[in-house]
Amino acid sequence: MEFSFTPLGISAAQPAYGRHLAGHVLAAGNELFLLDCGEGTQFQLHRYGVRRSRFRYIFISHLHGDHFFGLIGLLTSFGMNDRRDPLTVFAPPGLEEIIHLQMKLTGTILPFELTFQVLSADKKYRILETPSLEVFAFPLDHRTPTTGFLFQEKTIPLNIIPEIIDRYGLSFEQIRAVKTGADLTLPDGRQIPNHDLTLSPYRTRSFAYCSDTAYLETMAPLIRGVDILYHESTFREEDAALAKETFHSTAKQAAQLARLAEAEKLVLGHYSARYLDLSGLLEEAKAIFPNAVLGEEGIPVQVQAERMSGQIGQIPD
Amino acid sequence: MEFSFTPLGISAAQPAYGRHLAGHVLAAGNELFLLDCGEGTQFQLHRYGVRRSRFRYIFISHLHGDHFFGLIGLLTSFGMNDRRDPLTVFAPPGLEEIIHLQMKLTGTILPFELTFQVLSADKKYRILETPSLEVFAFPLDHRTPTTGFLFQEKTIPLNIIPEIIDRYGLSFEQIRAVKTGADLTLPDGRQIPNHDLTLSPYRTRSFAYCSDTAYLETMAPLIRGVDILYHESTFREEDAALAKETFHSTAKQAAQLARLAEAEKLVLGHYSARYLDLSGLLEEAKAIFPNAVLGEEGIPVQVQAERMSGQIGQIPD
Repeated sequence: MEFSFTPLGISAAQPAYGRHLAGHVLAAGNELFLLDCGEGTQFQLHRYGVRRSRFRYIFISHLHGDHFFGLIGLLTSFGMNDRRDPLTVFAPPGLEEIIHLQMKLTGTILPFELTFQVLSADKKYRILETPSLEVFAFPLDHRTPTTGFLFQEKTIPLNIIPEIIDRYGLSFEQIRAVKTGADLTLPDGRQIPNHDLTLSPYRTRSFAYCSDTAYLETMAPLIRGVDILYHESTFREEDAALAKETFHSTAKQAAQLARLAEAEKLVLGHYSARYLDLSGLLEEAKAIFPNAVLGEEGIPVQVQAERMSGQIGQIPD
Repeated sequence: MEFSFTPLGISAAQPAYGRHLAGHVLAAGNELFLLDCGEGTQFQLHRYGVRRSRFRYIFISHLHGDHFFGLIGLLTSFGMNDRRDPLTVFAPPGLEEIIHLQMKLTGTILPFELTFQVLSADKKYRILETPSLEVFAFPLDHRTPTTGFLFQEKTIPLNIIPEIIDRYGLSFEQIRAVKTGADLTLPDGRQIPNHDLTLSPYRTRSFAYCSDTAYLETMAPLIRGVDILYHESTFREEDAALAKETFHSTAKQAAQLARLAEAEKLVLGHYSARYLDLSGLLEEAKAIFPNAVLGEEGIPVQVQAERMSGQIGQIPD
């Protein structure tokens, strides 16, 4: 099963040098999740062949235009394409009012159920559970209430070693028990420990999305050990004063946070229009946290499915 | 002086095949005017090098999302770029409320004066006069109150034949009188008629913008003799029933209107996403009105400055 994060827009505040506004896709647990939806996100989804009909959940981190002005267009396009599947938008207070006013005044009636879940930005808490994932919101430190999102895979049922079932003639009930971690008692009373019956379990994967935020150390324990940390890096260190003033981060600060949180990989993004060349941002980050990459539009960053034993595997879809 | 019309978005309702949403630029009388502002218009302005800081007036034809969802992003970008020049938006009722709610909830304070002029869609009337132009709104026939816009050059002062001033030793007062059409009386009493003193005057140019509308014959006399008629052509004739149902036009109907209005040139646009190939639309229109062209994104359609005598000239900027 895929677990990948794809930025669609990497520009802060306004479009610049062909860079677009905030919009990101997480593919996880057979689902696609949309993270923020700046103006033009629906064009970017089309450009990169993202099947937007697969979105059941959209996450808007905060109420700045570069993170949500594209939502109304995406929703009305869903409507024009006769979407029927329900859609839930996790959003800060106010967004529902903005969307509903536009729906009302344009006479738009959506043919699907649209639900807004209002986010609280004052603690970490679980906002969603799917068969394979848990999603948490947690507070960031920006000029307006802003939440980060943590996506955490749930433990995947164990895979029984293929020949075991025939060898011991396992019943359906026994198979179910072994998959959940039970040992096996044979008719002669012998005990076979679970680890001799099952393949090494898959490591669960995780992703944290920190859209707009000042450097915030208290975030680190909330996302400890995350596989991919997307952390905004609006500015270079030479513009640290600007970062502080606007409640944004430098690339160096993003890297410091990644190191503190013991993240596996750091993806940068949300670059200021003052930088045509982004290599300086990457250098700053890599000096602190070597496994940093520049988020690029349409380029997925993947986490492979890996068994606890370290073996790369294929989680069945 | 330039007089040209440039579509930036030619797709109806939603983006398709790389075609963008409604946004158009008229360059006239040393000004740039923006006509409609669908999502992504600010990107298109950038792509085609339009100096958006030169807009003093924006015209929104009606309250369907594909014609205005890009306005809030453009306005906030103006703000971020520290625009100081006042801006007037001619718009249907409701748009001001939508923009103001988003400004309020995002905590945006614009550093320039933004004025909304609410349009009435029930008669033709003058909405703006600049030193060189008059602009009129007139009603279209769509599912929601919708206005067309007519841009009409004012009469340009006459140019005196260069050698005349020296030949007759004209005073400043005499020059001013001749430029406004007066004859000249020489000291010996002889009368020199104005047409012997001045170059043939420039023909005034005009442009009509009919964004979303069913076929509407009563529009023709309101825009009679227009140089460029932009008229939506959402559908082909084979989909005429759909056009009727949705209060849109076929390319054939756009051409019929152009013929009835004795337009000089017809520019088509607002193409339905059901057509990848647009050549059928053009063929239908040309069969009725040969001087029809497909509106293309970023391609200006110009009207040259032409003297009454037919001579192509250069109106001084």
